[in-house]
Amino acid sequence: MGKLRYLPPGTAPATLILPPEYQHVRPSKSLLEYDAHSFQEHRVETIDDLFPYLESEKISWINIDGLGDIEFFQQLALHFRIHPLALEDILNLGQRPKVEEYDCQLFIVLHMAHERKQQEMKFEQVSIVLTEKIVITVQERSGDVLNPVRQRLRDGVGNARFMRADYLAYALIDAVIDQYFPLIDSLGETLDNFQRSLLDQPTRERINEIHEFRRNIARIHRDVGLQRDVLGQLMRDESGLVAERTKLYFRDCYDNTVVMLDHLESFRDSTRNMMELYLTSTSIRTNEMVRVLTILASVFLPLTFIAGIYGMNFDPMRGRLNMPELEWPFGYLFAICLVLSVTIGILAFFKRKKWL
Amino acid sequence: MGKLRYLPPGTAPATLILPPEYQHVRPSKSLLEYDAHSFQEHRVETIDDLFPYLESEKISWINIDGLGDIEFFQQLALHFRIHPLALEDILNLGQRPKVEEYDCQLFIVLHMAHERKQQEMKFEQVSIVLTEKIVITVQERSGDVLNPVRQRLRDGVGNARFMRADYLAYALIDAVIDQYFPLIDSLGETLDNFQRSLLDQPTRERINEIHEFRRNIARIHRDVGLQRDVLGQLMRDESGLVAERTKLYFRDCYDNTVVMLDHLESFRDSTRNMMELYLTSTSIRTNEMVRVLTILASVFLPLTFIAGIYGMNFDPMRGRLNMPELEWPFGYLFAICLVLSVTIGILAFFKRKKWL
Amino acid sequence: MGKLRYLPPGTAPATLILPPEYQHVRPSKSLLEYDAHSFQEHRVETIDDLFPYLESEKISWINIDGLGDIEFFQQLALHFRIHPLALEDILNLGQRPKVEEYDCQLFIVLHMAHERKQQEMKFEQVSIVLTEKIVITVQERSGDVLNPVRQRLRDGVGNARFMRADYLAYALIDAVIDQYFPLIDSLGETLDNFQRSLLDQPTRERINEIHEFRRNIARIHRDVGLQRDVLGQLMRDESGLVAERTKLYFRDCYDNTVVMLDHLESFRDSTRNMMELYLTSTSIRTNEMVRVLTILASVFLPLTFIAGIYGMNFDPMRGRLNMPELEWPFGYLFAICLVLSVTIGILAFFKRKKWL
Amino acid sequence: MGKLRYLPPGTAPATLILPPEYQHVRPSKSLLEYDAHSFQEHRVETIDDLFPYLESEKISWINIDGLGDIEFFQQLALHFRIHPLALEDILNLGQRPKVEEYDCQLFIVLHMAHERKQQEMKFEQVSIVLTEKIVITVQERSGDVLNPVRQRLRDGVGNARFMRADYLAYALIDAVIDQYFPLIDSLGETLDNFQRSLLDQPTRERINEIHEFRRNIARIHRDVGLQRDVLGQLMRDESGLVAERTKLYFRDCYDNTVVMLDHLESFRDSTRNMMELYLTSTSIRTNEMVRVLTILASVFLPLTFIAGIYGMNFDPMRGRLNMPELEWPFGYLFAICLVLSVTIGILAFFKRKKWL
Amino acid sequence: MGKLRYLPPGTAPATLILPPEYQHVRPSKSLLEYDAHSFQEHRVETIDDLFPYLESEKISWINIDGLGDIEFFQQLALHFRIHPLALEDILNLGQRPKVEEYDCQLFIVLHMAHERKQQEMKFEQVSIVLTEKIVITVQERSGDVLNPVRQRLRDGVGNARFMRADYLAYALIDAVIDQYFPLIDSLGETLDNFQRSLLDQPTRERINEIHEFRRNIARIHRDVGLQRDVLGQLMRDESGLVAERTKLYFRDCYDNTVVMLDHLESFRDSTRNMMELYLTSTSIRTNEMVRVLTILASVFLPLTFIAGIYGMNFDPMRGRLNMPELEWPFGYLFAICLVLSVTIGILAFFKRKKWL
Repeated sequence: MGKLRYLPPGTAPATLILPPEYQHVRPSKSLLEYDAHSFQEHRVETIDDLFPYLESEKISWINIDGLGDIEFFQQLALHFRIHPLALEDILNLGQRPKVEEYDCQLFIVLHMAHERKQQEMKFEQVSIVLTEKIVITVQERSGDVLNPVRQRLRDGVGNARFMRADYLAYALIDAVIDQYFPLIDSLGETLDNFQRSLLDQPTRERINEIHEFRRNIARIHRDVGLQRDVLGQLMRDESGLVAERTKLYFRDCYDNTVVMLDHLESFRDSTRNMMELYLTSTSIRTNEMVRVLTILASVFLPLTFIAGIYGMNFDPMRGRLNMPELEWPFGYLFAICLVLSVTIGILAFFKRKKWL
Repeated sequence: MGKLRYLPPGTAPATLILPPEYQHVRPSKSLLEYDAHSFQEHRVETIDDLFPYLESEKISWINIDGLGDIEFFQQLALHFRIHPLALEDILNLGQRPKVEEYDCQLFIVLHMAHERKQQEMKFEQVSIVLTEKIVITVQERSGDVLNPVRQRLRDGVGNARFMRADYLAYALIDAVIDQYFPLIDSLGETLDNFQRSLLDQPTRERINEIHEFRRNIARIHRDVGLQRDVLGQLMRDESGLVAERTKLYFRDCYDNTVVMLDHLESFRDSTRNMMELYLTSTSIRTNEMVRVLTILASVFLPLTFIAGIYGMNFDPMRGRLNMPELEWPFGYLFAICLVLSVTIGILAFFKRKKWL
Repeated sequence: MGKLRYLPPGTAPATLILPPEYQHVRPSKSLLEYDAHSFQEHRVETIDDLFPYLESEKISWINIDGLGDIEFFQQLALHFRIHPLALEDILNLGQRPKVEEYDCQLFIVLHMAHERKQQEMKFEQVSIVLTEKIVITVQERSGDVLNPVRQRLRDGVGNARFMRADYLAYALIDAVIDQYFPLIDSLGETLDNFQRSLLDQPTRERINEIHEFRRNIARIHRDVGLQRDVLGQLMRDESGLVAERTKLYFRDCYDNTVVMLDHLESFRDSTRNMMELYLTSTSIRTNEMVRVLTILASVFLPLTFIAGIYGMNFDPMRGRLNMPELEWPFGYLFAICLVLSVTIGILAFFKRKKWL
Repeated sequence: MGKLRYLPPGTAPATLILPPEYQHVRPSKSLLEYDAHSFQEHRVETIDDLFPYLESEKISWINIDGLGDIEFFQQLALHFRIHPLALEDILNLGQRPKVEEYDCQLFIVLHMAHERKQQEMKFEQVSIVLTEKIVITVQERSGDVLNPVRQRLRDGVGNARFMRADYLAYALIDAVIDQYFPLIDSLGETLDNFQRSLLDQPTRERINEIHEFRRNIARIHRDVGLQRDVLGQLMRDESGLVAERTKLYFRDCYDNTVVMLDHLESFRDSTRNMMELYLTSTSIRTNEMVRVLTILASVFLPLTFIAGIYGMNFDPMRGRLNMPELEWPFGYLFAICLVLSVTIGILAFFKRKKWL
Repeated sequence: MGKLRYLPPGTAPATLILPPEYQHVRPSKSLLEYDAHSFQEHRVETIDDLFPYLESEKISWINIDGLGDIEFFQQLALHFRIHPLALEDILNLGQRPKVEEYDCQLFIVLHMAHERKQQEMKFEQVSIVLTEKIVITVQERSGDVLNPVRQRLRDGVGNARFMRADYLAYALIDAVIDQYFPLIDSLGETLDNFQRSLLDQPTRERINEIHEFRRNIARIHRDVGLQRDVLGQLMRDESGLVAERTKLYFRDCYDNTVVMLDHLESFRDSTRNMMELYLTSTSIRTNEMVRVLTILASVFLPLTFIAGIYGMNFDPMRGRLNMPELEWPFGYLFAICLVLSVTIGILAFFKRKKWL
């Protein structure tokens, strides 16, 4: 789980407060306009830069990277009738993936996955506002996840430019969700490597690493699961903003999340297996050591006793039964034979018990 | 779980009995009246003090802190048509969070969280009666959780004064529920610290502490979960007392409880991991001790046996094979070399087994 | 679970067979008649004693304590049109709590809890037949659980006498279910005491006691859970026998069962924790013993070896290297110093490992 | 689970192949005809023997014991319009309990339990075809489970002969399901005995026996659970073949299966408890042995060391500090006192640790 | 789980990319045409080869084995109006079993099981497009799973040729699903063998083998479970493409998957039992070794001490109490008797503890 983000209890709803680390990230804004025949891209500074373009019948995509300009967002909300609660969710990061219906608008929150290096993952909130002709996307920072969609629009590849705003929203959501594929793939590889090395080095830190895996898997599972629910809602959307034929595409994307979840669940089973393996290997090691200890003690305790017997200082002079062995010419040989036969007997016992 | 509170079996329903510790807490009562243009605050002593104000078209909020005046509550119930069962629930603490529909009224019970110090938490019951124009709140004791709402009304901040009684109820519920955010946050921090110190000091008391954490998490999870259900019911309310646009605010609050539950579930996983870690660390410690014991015994048992052999009292005089070593000029050196080579052999064996 | 009670396979349905221990318990029967203005109580012997009273518009409650008169029950069923299957359930004990709708009748089975002493609980079946104007209750034996209701009717306390037969049924069910409160309360107390004593005396019998607790909790949980379902069905009753305003009372009673279930679930968690605690304390004890053993062996094995060395019988006369220590004037001191320094070294090693 | 029975992949649906062990069991067929006033029983050889009787308004029950006459079944299916898939299910054993609706027919599969001896159970498939006036039952072999129903019809006991074919089907299903009562009862008894003997003889075979119990319980639970679902479907039947008043009887039978499931679940808990008990008893035994070992080693290692000290051969002649004890007149007594005081000290230490 | 297959994030939907290992597998295509009276089989090379045949009223089955001809698939999609997303799913392997409704078409994905040898399983994707008169099947490679259906059509066996395209689709799906029967059967046998050998050789590799079983069972359970859902959807199909009487056949096939799932679940229980057995057997072995060690140490530690006592060098000359035993004529016998009596005492103690 990321950090729990919350405003002080009792704060009025729809209060806009930015986490400090985002306050100085000036948003970069752009506007894309297209229809089947044309495509235009504009850099935008203020809210007024937008108006000349929005009158036409074209589909518009307003993309905002960065949150550090509350006033801009307030104007945006005013002009595009974004509900104060939706605006709050855009700026107050830490929302879970969800889709909410407002009057003539769908408000969608997704999590975008970045894998920096092995095991360290970063997630970012992406907010999407879908109206009839306009799609507004807000990212925490500039990123390249949505670039392929922009490029496909620019190139007019496939049917991208022939379809409506809902299809654009689909393409953006699909791009965000596909991002989890390489993440899960590399997680699976790391798990495999880890499992292979587990038996060789079952150190105590391993436990923490397994727990770390579990936490990561749970984290991703939760995100993907919620995003599956978002897609499920869009697939069955009744607001009228999603056309029937676009729903087929959402269903396709939904299928991808289900495949992801299947893999994550098998990862979960793997970590459970690893934990078992780890615990067993500890208990087997103890077992083996106790075995060695038992065998050694079984052999040497009797031997030492025999040696002790003949180390006693009874005086053979005092009586004929007083350690006559000490006086025998082959007493030492006798003692050694005794020792050897006891040893052999004990080892035979262990052999029969299959402990040797 | 708190104490199980119940009246003697067979008591008539809607019987009003106060727990003894509340009988002498005289309630302090206040009335707030407002509309878009005005705001008034009155201190109230008896039920009759209320009537001059309630005729107007304004929204009224009657707040009662303390339960120790059953007669007042009976008059209140009479005048505001509060159902006897709802009144019983207000006074008979130990209700679970819930919302119940009565004729033209919603009766809502919530739990309010106070964190006193580390690990010690107190919960208090808040009852809310929502009618078309009036909101009645009853708390166990005077507290400051609802103050921010009062302050926002006083200041006319945001749209608080423009909206209806249902929005007031929302603002109060939101204030109560937001209280869980800092609680959960500090619980998470305590858990982190605990986990870090667990490996260093895996004493037996740790188990009890982990169980204590579990109990607290279960307790809060249950409360928040029930409160999420309350909000879910209010979001889908069909009594007509909650306006459509207020439902959007309840949905926002519902989202907060879901985020809380997510965090609590990850805490739950953490305590499970801790338990595992604890148990493993015990078994690893045993394993390590057995390892030391085995190595030591393996080295010294054979050595002691060798020393025992040459401590035997066979008389070399009696025969040429009777411990001739004792008579050798370098017998002692021979014995020491024997000891050293046995030691080296055993250590090499353990080295190969990776036990050293 | 109680004993599994069943009739021989292949028995015709609705066959009336009494368990032998109930055959000789002659039922004691009484009739209560009341309306808002009057209240009458009659002792009844035969079915004919009932008829003079049932014609009026008053509400009647027929209470039967004991089952040992099959003929009486058959006449009762005939006159009040009780379905043969319902009659079978009344007499064939071992039914689970349930509510069944028959033509113009509700047939309700509940379990009544008696706590005799610590840990020993007895449950009894109560059957309730609710028609428009008549309530029939059948208990296994005479008991005082329903007495408070009788008393309230007699005294005309509250609104008891103003309401219909469905409210009487509610009052009876409420009295039965409230009986679980003290039971659960005392179970919780016993659990607390047990947990406190667990660490002091972790004997083997403790396991059986924990299992016994679990069984009891499961038993009560199951009963209360089924009774919650019964109340849920009555709350949503569509037979027309339960008035809307009575349903509010059933909802209140339903709430009580939910609170009970919450407590029982937290008891369940407690037993799980206890089990863990128990198992851990065993493994910690083993760990501690192994620690003592390892330290002792580590100290004394080397020492004994050193003593053994100087007990060897090599003859210092035979060569200058043959145990010259034995001839030294301070040889003994040297050996003692050797012993002390080895001891100190080993203890230092354990100190550093934090095993001391 | 029984053997997995299946036809070779790619076989056409509704192919009739009999398991070899059933091919030579010639079915014995009988026809019962009855109405309120009459009852007739006929032995039947060929399909033509049936026709004279089926024209009347009476209820007919055709019972077939044994499967080894595919041709007969094909004619039966043809004349009574049994669907090829239903016919396949009758002959291809290994179906799960289920009810299927075909045109004007209900096709019901049940499992019949036989308990041969302790722990060894046999299950048999019973197929029932219910049409408006005719009930056809097919059993694997002749058996006496359905006899009581036949006898009740013959005797005209109860209302058996007054009701329709659906009631006959009920009576048959009830007879089959009641058969599980003694099975579960004896399983419970076996479990109790087992549990009592577990602590005395915790041998390794016990684990296998617990697993065997689990498997049996799971097996019966699954069968009864599926049969509960069958009854649930019949209770809510909408094909028109089951009359409303018969549904009350199915509800009664459904209740029985629920009671059975309750018992089976408590058995399941018992086996879980037993497993825990078993594992704990192993770990407690190890613990106890380690305790004895530790105490013994703690006592004798120091003693042996002391004895070893005074067995050293330092020559008291060489210096005044060279083992002067050996020359003391009470040296031996001194050594013995040393030994005793060390022993007492160590035992006191263990006493304080509560290990003694 | 198989490999996670995915296209680079941001790829346009419905992009056709073949995994490299499939690019050079030229598909072999065939067309079957039949009605009640005729049956024809054609080998097909290009899309144009198909058209002469499709005009008639006959049912057509187009079977394509191999994917390495994207252009052909694109033409196919164009002519038979296969949706781009369905086409993508046909070629982009790694889809889960599912059924999707497109305009006038059902698109079904199944997994086909091949068991190569013990424990190694291969799964292949089969895509089926069902329209009113045409069924198109696409397999990864040529295989013989669908051959029996082809043969039944060729031979006109049963009612195969009398029914519509939906029945053909059923027959194909049934053939694919029946393939899991022998797979599950042999898995069950392998499990039985494994379990039998587990107690004899509880080596560490066993854990990995159990996990491998679990993974396989989970894999098959998931496939069969999803295929059950596919059949459930077809059973309740509302697109009009599946006739009522065909639905009965799908129900029959659905029943088969449920039986499979029952078996797989009992396998799952078996692996859980095995794991328990394995862990227990390790802990029992340790227990037994500790027992042997304890007994041995208990016997020999005291004996060695006694021998050590009489090995002390106190000089009996110095005082009458200085080891007088050494001077006794029967001192040695006395010592031996002492040793024997101690041994007997200790063994008696263990006997009483039931450790011997």
